[in-house]
Amino acid sequence: MKLGFVSAILPELSLEEVIDFAAAEGFDCVELMCWPVGKAERRYAGVTHVDVSEFGAGDAQRINDLLAAKGVEISGLGYYPNPLAPDRAEAQVYIDHIEKVIQAAALLGVNQVNTFIGRDWTRSVEDNWPRFLEVWPPLVGFAGSQGVRIGIENCPMFFTGDEWPGGKNLAYAPAIWRRMFEAIPSPTLGLNYDPSHLVWLRIDYLKPLWEFGERIYHVHAKDVRLDRQRLDEVGILATPLEFHTPKLPGLGEIDWGRFFSVLSDVGYEGAVCIEVEDRAYEGSLARRKAALVQSARYLRGFMS
Amino acid sequence: MKLGFVSAILPELSLEEVIDFAAAEGFDCVELMCWPVGKAERRYAGVTHVDVSEFGAGDAQRINDLLAAKGVEISGLGYYPNPLAPDRAEAQVYIDHIEKVIQAAALLGVNQVNTFIGRDWTRSVEDNWPRFLEVWPPLVGFAGSQGVRIGIENCPMFFTGDEWPGGKNLAYAPAIWRRMFEAIPSPTLGLNYDPSHLVWLRIDYLKPLWEFGERIYHVHAKDVRLDRQRLDEVGILATPLEFHTPKLPGLGEIDWGRFFSVLSDVGYEGAVCIEVEDRAYEGSLARRKAALVQSARYLRGFMS
Amino acid sequence: MKLGFVSAILPELSLEEVIDFAAAEGFDCVELMCWPVGKAERRYAGVTHVDVSEFGAGDAQRINDLLAAKGVEISGLGYYPNPLAPDRAEAQVYIDHIEKVIQAAALLGVNQVNTFIGRDWTRSVEDNWPRFLEVWPPLVGFAGSQGVRIGIENCPMFFTGDEWPGGKNLAYAPAIWRRMFEAIPSPTLGLNYDPSHLVWLRIDYLKPLWEFGERIYHVHAKDVRLDRQRLDEVGILATPLEFHTPKLPGLGEIDWGRFFSVLSDVGYEGAVCIEVEDRAYEGSLARRKAALVQSARYLRGFMS
Amino acid sequence: MKLGFVSAILPELSLEEVIDFAAAEGFDCVELMCWPVGKAERRYAGVTHVDVSEFGAGDAQRINDLLAAKGVEISGLGYYPNPLAPDRAEAQVYIDHIEKVIQAAALLGVNQVNTFIGRDWTRSVEDNWPRFLEVWPPLVGFAGSQGVRIGIENCPMFFTGDEWPGGKNLAYAPAIWRRMFEAIPSPTLGLNYDPSHLVWLRIDYLKPLWEFGERIYHVHAKDVRLDRQRLDEVGILATPLEFHTPKLPGLGEIDWGRFFSVLSDVGYEGAVCIEVEDRAYEGSLARRKAALVQSARYLRGFMS
Amino acid sequence: MKLGFVSAILPELSLEEVIDFAAAEGFDCVELMCWPVGKAERRYAGVTHVDVSEFGAGDAQRINDLLAAKGVEISGLGYYPNPLAPDRAEAQVYIDHIEKVIQAAALLGVNQVNTFIGRDWTRSVEDNWPRFLEVWPPLVGFAGSQGVRIGIENCPMFFTGDEWPGGKNLAYAPAIWRRMFEAIPSPTLGLNYDPSHLVWLRIDYLKPLWEFGERIYHVHAKDVRLDRQRLDEVGILATPLEFHTPKLPGLGEIDWGRFFSVLSDVGYEGAVCIEVEDRAYEGSLARRKAALVQSARYLRGFMS
Amino acid sequence: MKLGFVSAILPELSLEEVIDFAAAEGFDCVELMCWPVGKAERRYAGVTHVDVSEFGAGDAQRINDLLAAKGVEISGLGYYPNPLAPDRAEAQVYIDHIEKVIQAAALLGVNQVNTFIGRDWTRSVEDNWPRFLEVWPPLVGFAGSQGVRIGIENCPMFFTGDEWPGGKNLAYAPAIWRRMFEAIPSPTLGLNYDPSHLVWLRIDYLKPLWEFGERIYHVHAKDVRLDRQRLDEVGILATPLEFHTPKLPGLGEIDWGRFFSVLSDVGYEGAVCIEVEDRAYEGSLARRKAALVQSARYLRGFMS
Repeated sequence: MKLGFVSAILPELSLEEVIDFAAAEGFDCVELMCWPVGKAERRYAGVTHVDVSEFGAGDAQRINDLLAAKGVEISGLGYYPNPLAPDRAEAQVYIDHIEKVIQAAALLGVNQVNTFIGRDWTRSVEDNWPRFLEVWPPLVGFAGSQGVRIGIENCPMFFTGDEWPGGKNLAYAPAIWRRMFEAIPSPTLGLNYDPSHLVWLRIDYLKPLWEFGERIYHVHAKDVRLDRQRLDEVGILATPLEFHTPKLPGLGEIDWGRFFSVLSDVGYEGAVCIEVEDRAYEGSLARRKAALVQSARYLRGFMS
Repeated sequence: MKLGFVSAILPELSLEEVIDFAAAEGFDCVELMCWPVGKAERRYAGVTHVDVSEFGAGDAQRINDLLAAKGVEISGLGYYPNPLAPDRAEAQVYIDHIEKVIQAAALLGVNQVNTFIGRDWTRSVEDNWPRFLEVWPPLVGFAGSQGVRIGIENCPMFFTGDEWPGGKNLAYAPAIWRRMFEAIPSPTLGLNYDPSHLVWLRIDYLKPLWEFGERIYHVHAKDVRLDRQRLDEVGILATPLEFHTPKLPGLGEIDWGRFFSVLSDVGYEGAVCIEVEDRAYEGSLARRKAALVQSARYLRGFMS
Repeated sequence: MKLGFVSAILPELSLEEVIDFAAAEGFDCVELMCWPVGKAERRYAGVTHVDVSEFGAGDAQRINDLLAAKGVEISGLGYYPNPLAPDRAEAQVYIDHIEKVIQAAALLGVNQVNTFIGRDWTRSVEDNWPRFLEVWPPLVGFAGSQGVRIGIENCPMFFTGDEWPGGKNLAYAPAIWRRMFEAIPSPTLGLNYDPSHLVWLRIDYLKPLWEFGERIYHVHAKDVRLDRQRLDEVGILATPLEFHTPKLPGLGEIDWGRFFSVLSDVGYEGAVCIEVEDRAYEGSLARRKAALVQSARYLRGFMS
Repeated sequence: MKLGFVSAILPELSLEEVIDFAAAEGFDCVELMCWPVGKAERRYAGVTHVDVSEFGAGDAQRINDLLAAKGVEISGLGYYPNPLAPDRAEAQVYIDHIEKVIQAAALLGVNQVNTFIGRDWTRSVEDNWPRFLEVWPPLVGFAGSQGVRIGIENCPMFFTGDEWPGGKNLAYAPAIWRRMFEAIPSPTLGLNYDPSHLVWLRIDYLKPLWEFGERIYHVHAKDVRLDRQRLDEVGILATPLEFHTPKLPGLGEIDWGRFFSVLSDVGYEGAVCIEVEDRAYEGSLARRKAALVQSARYLRGFMS
Repeated sequence: MKLGFVSAILPELSLEEVIDFAAAEGFDCVELMCWPVGKAERRYAGVTHVDVSEFGAGDAQRINDLLAAKGVEISGLGYYPNPLAPDRAEAQVYIDHIEKVIQAAALLGVNQVNTFIGRDWTRSVEDNWPRFLEVWPPLVGFAGSQGVRIGIENCPMFFTGDEWPGGKNLAYAPAIWRRMFEAIPSPTLGLNYDPSHLVWLRIDYLKPLWEFGERIYHVHAKDVRLDRQRLDEVGILATPLEFHTPKLPGLGEIDWGRFFSVLSDVGYEGAVCIEVEDRAYEGSLARRKAALVQSARYLRGFMS
Repeated sequence: MKLGFVSAILPELSLEEVIDFAAAEGFDCVELMCWPVGKAERRYAGVTHVDVSEFGAGDAQRINDLLAAKGVEISGLGYYPNPLAPDRAEAQVYIDHIEKVIQAAALLGVNQVNTFIGRDWTRSVEDNWPRFLEVWPPLVGFAGSQGVRIGIENCPMFFTGDEWPGGKNLAYAPAIWRRMFEAIPSPTLGLNYDPSHLVWLRIDYLKPLWEFGERIYHVHAKDVRLDRQRLDEVGILATPLEFHTPKLPGLGEIDWGRFFSVLSDVGYEGAVCIEVEDRAYEGSLARRKAALVQSARYLRGFMS
């Protein structure tokens, strides 16, 4: 496997600086954020390390030269909006931009784009399904035509009352993934597997590796801690951040040895990108860099 | 403590038959259902063992004579509607009937009425709070004036998509109970404590006994089983009956020895009423009676 | 469900005495042993409460009258030899007797006979399979023609060096049951499910209830204790009695609440027969009777 | 085994009333308290159901007639002082009375007296050992000469600051029992085994059954609950009642199924006497009787 | 956070050599031992890397220059005597020396001195309290006047019979810390938090981080292993080293990932100093250095 | 301790290349494979890094010079055949070669040869014992005469149907080791301790360290993962690879922190050689080298 990180945690660095940091710390790869230039809509969003709005072959060449010089690869391009947002006009903006990210990926020769399915968070999974069936088959078809795979991150995008009650991404549970892949059997569609979300959802984060192993196209390494004393106050019907805390790998509930044990046995050989959303490490750029270095040190005991 | 059962599971029996059964099987008490005569709105609702609509001193005398003759007590009168239903007219019907149940309890010399706070299930706890503050203080005041305590069952009333996403009863978690008792400090208001709901909500069902012991006015003995293989498919954001199954005491997750151990230490000496919602035991009246007998046999090893 | 016991533990009692005891202690049913009259080949074998060798309609009538008078049912007829014994002549004797037991069951109007598949214990499961395919389809066909179901007990019949290394019954694991039912899909063939064997085989004893629920035709209630200090000396390659001890229900590893919880949910409504193989309770007839009474007391907290 | 209780919990009943109660509730036996008539020195002490001060053959005959008439046995005579009290005159009073209890047991034909080794609680085990070697060999010799076995209860007699830091009975741990039996190998000396003390001492309560099985002459059935939240405040160096609570069997940490499983396998066939020290059940004589009845109901699922 | 070590494990090295080693191995800081020059009173005591007896501004300058040159900081000055020793003259010697350590810290511009509260180990916590109230307020006042914080290590200083029964440091449990901070609310007084002691005391080592987070001024990274087989022999009333073994971080019971997870979330940004008391690593200076290097390698996976 | 690896995983490298790799990656030592030149009889066998067939003082000198130049030691010579193979002629070939390996070790000044006891896998441990007593005393005697210790690896050599039912090495469990050392008390005979085999045999891998610590002459660091879902299908009577998977250290069931904690406390100071049998890492020489590097990174957190 290849060890990398998600570039969203280094928003003040230029692409060059991100790649320099990656090279200096021995990372194999980076997932580069491709949000439209402008204001972030939420924490960890709005970062632009590759501006895909007017992306051409020259841009691709420049980036690939830079990467080759530093010996770092792009694990995927990342853009995580809500393509099923209730406001269809807004959703279409997201969809259009996803297509631009796919095109950029094709130009870069990177075959991986990571994103969300999206969801109208005020409606049930069932009630969102018709929109899913309308939006996603053409999008997957487009990606396929560009030779680019799509990795859907399995985050429910439900944190606080802002996304209550359903969250902003349908693809959060095995039963839903199965239904999704039955509806769109194309090998273009797969998962950007982040075990940490499954922890607080109380879903075994190892079992799906056996069933969905061939659909795992990218991996995020993040962890969460569940605090009993907080859960005992509010229960699972509370908003999720009331009872769990995102943490760096090694500082949460995940048994990373076991995770990489099964992951290696199902034949995964792709990228594992550290995603930092641990507020204890976000005080400064130095702390966020240290978070990546610490996480890599920890994970390298379990992978290579 | 006193061992009894919730009469809702014996809807085809008359009050006399319910009491006869209780006496024959050695139960100390029964929680009698007081729904308005008519069609049930949901499973386990709509049972009328005491018709409180035109209830007078004579009715009370007749029932008390019957109870005295059989050596069985009423642990409380039960009626579990949604007094905070979004339709205010509908809610008022419920509130009015709760008052009738309270009056009947006063006439019977029973100081306990059990019910729900209710909730507009489409809105957050926060958004329901103003209605709570409007409806409940006068209701508690009325009960107090009648010398009757109110026991709120801690069930979120969230089972399937019908109650998605919030359920129909606010009073499901310790943080909410604390807020509720701060808003209405009157000793008239307490809990009808059912540990089984806490299990699937992932709330410790023992810890609140220490903090809220003095507010526990009635106890329901029901159990639930959590099936990992189902939870692993859908996660905690699914509707609750997708991952848990109500069962008889002894057939679920609850450690009843531990529960009665702490319950006895916090000084609880009241009623413990078996509530049967186990579909494997609902095929016939005989099976439902057997369920009560079996549950009593099990629980008597831990209480007296 | 119906609570009964396996009559093998009361070899010195006549059928009448067995039924009297069952009635006196409130058992619903008994599994009656039907070994050929003569010397037992191993512990717990060789007991004859129904002699099927020359069994006719008159015998059936006499027994059924006795049962009706006492209010006790036969849960099944039991005979547990090795029909795949390496010595084919010996095996044929067992097969012939199984057929007689089936005929007696038909005459008695009991639709259940319990036995073993058998095995040449010196050979692998694979190497035994041709014999299984030769012997069992006709036997199941015969039972079907008599309207009698066969319940195969899931005991590997491996205890000491005498049955090393394979044991004397193939049908010990879910993978083998699945293969068995694929080879013989007839509903005549099912399981006499004893969770205790699965414990020391380290097979989840609950999971198969979901998959094989419809094939469970009879249940044995027995328990085992695993002693870490013994297993730590010899490991799982030792003979099984070196590291486990059969015990009465409630004195072993099985969570009987959980077992009956799932068993009831998969729709099982048949017999649960206590099987006593606990040497601490075998010192006298009185102790063995006490073992049955104690086990019934324990199990009745979880079933009815 | 035989199920009984320790008579100390029924101080206001006469011997006749104790035996009547035992018979009415189906107990096989009772451990009768033999404190000198007078004021109790601590909770649960000072109860006199047999006054051994002037005990003669006639007294023995009268008691044995009473027992025979009711079908109840004496499991042992009990008297639990501190025979190694720092004040040697005080200790001698205790030793003299133990001898009287032994003589009464001999006259009654009961071969079991239960007591404590005692301890100077201000000194270490090591520093108490010379006194042990001085006091106990002659006492054991005397008991042997009377044909009476001594069962030392394994309670450290350390509850609050009153017994700080060492408690008032040396015989609380396997390492000490081993040393004790090496010093006094006579089969007259054994244990009155109470698993509950071992729980809070963090000693496995099953392991010693294998090693000391032949020395277990009597068993007390009591339980304790450990409350994490209390232990987390004070730690194990606190006085024991700061972090544990004695409870009825079934309401504590002990796995009674496992306990009786091993106990039966090591060949124990003697008395198991319920000892009630659960303050939640001590409010009245009726509650204490109910505690015995409830405990018996619970334990009878695991023993006979 | 900053990773360092306690210099007591390198007694044969000079201050310069200690700092050289720290720099060479990438440690951020060192807690320097300041025992009076002379013979150690117990294992790990008596080490003098800073002689505070005649410490002046010039000494401070020399040390600070050395540290600056090597890029290593002082996390605190350490001196761990028994300031509540029963012999008041002896105690006063300790108190006087603590004051000298405080003065040296002030001169060095280090705001942290680590020590013990002390205890008369033959008396209860309660009986020691008057001495605590007499000795510590002025000492804390003095430290405050020097701008130096005091970190009390939470070690009970109870290992063998020498410190029986109470140990030589009162400040070992949350209930005691709370009482201590209520008596002396000054922010000058805090904890030098070592989670390993809490393990064998059976106190949750995470919970206090939430409550006392703001009072944690220094952290010791040490671990312990509890051996069941030893505890099962002697129980918790034995002397502590009879049932636990101090070990390097990663070789004991502590879940360091969890520890640093919570520690980072309560805002701790100070020093974490490895304390080596693992006898398996004490055979030579090389082994003790290797112990520090190994421990740092392990801990760096969880912190930065 | 010294960290090394088993050279069998690098069959395509010459001895020089193996040593170069070891030196480059900072390994302290290597266990060198000494199979006869020729075709491997099974996976991981047949590797020849030292050809002992015609090994003389010159060969030893050349190798020792090479090692000295690179700063790498030989932890032992390894050759793992079946010296108790049923075919005695075949077994003698193995025995003869073991003697050559011993002689080579003596010439090299390495005092450690690692191998298997062997077994006729079709017969019980008991039935193999006479052969053990015939073959091994002279072999141990020979080794002793050469000043070379023998380390028997505790692998049952049972993987698939090929070694059914007994496996090809007797020395797999503590009860057998004890018997083995009673038969051959010579200190020449010891264990090459690999905790991973004990995991799937369900034998505590820590307990034997205390008892057999002085007999542990070499350690293999390998891990295994047990997959519940596979075990639940087939049970422990299946062939072992049906339910377990060999993995790199850190990717399996072993708690390496605990393992090294106890190992260090029993005084072990010898070699710990990583043994790679993880198929997920065997795709190329680069992957196998990476496996060794990753494992070393992981283990160095727990040892030095």
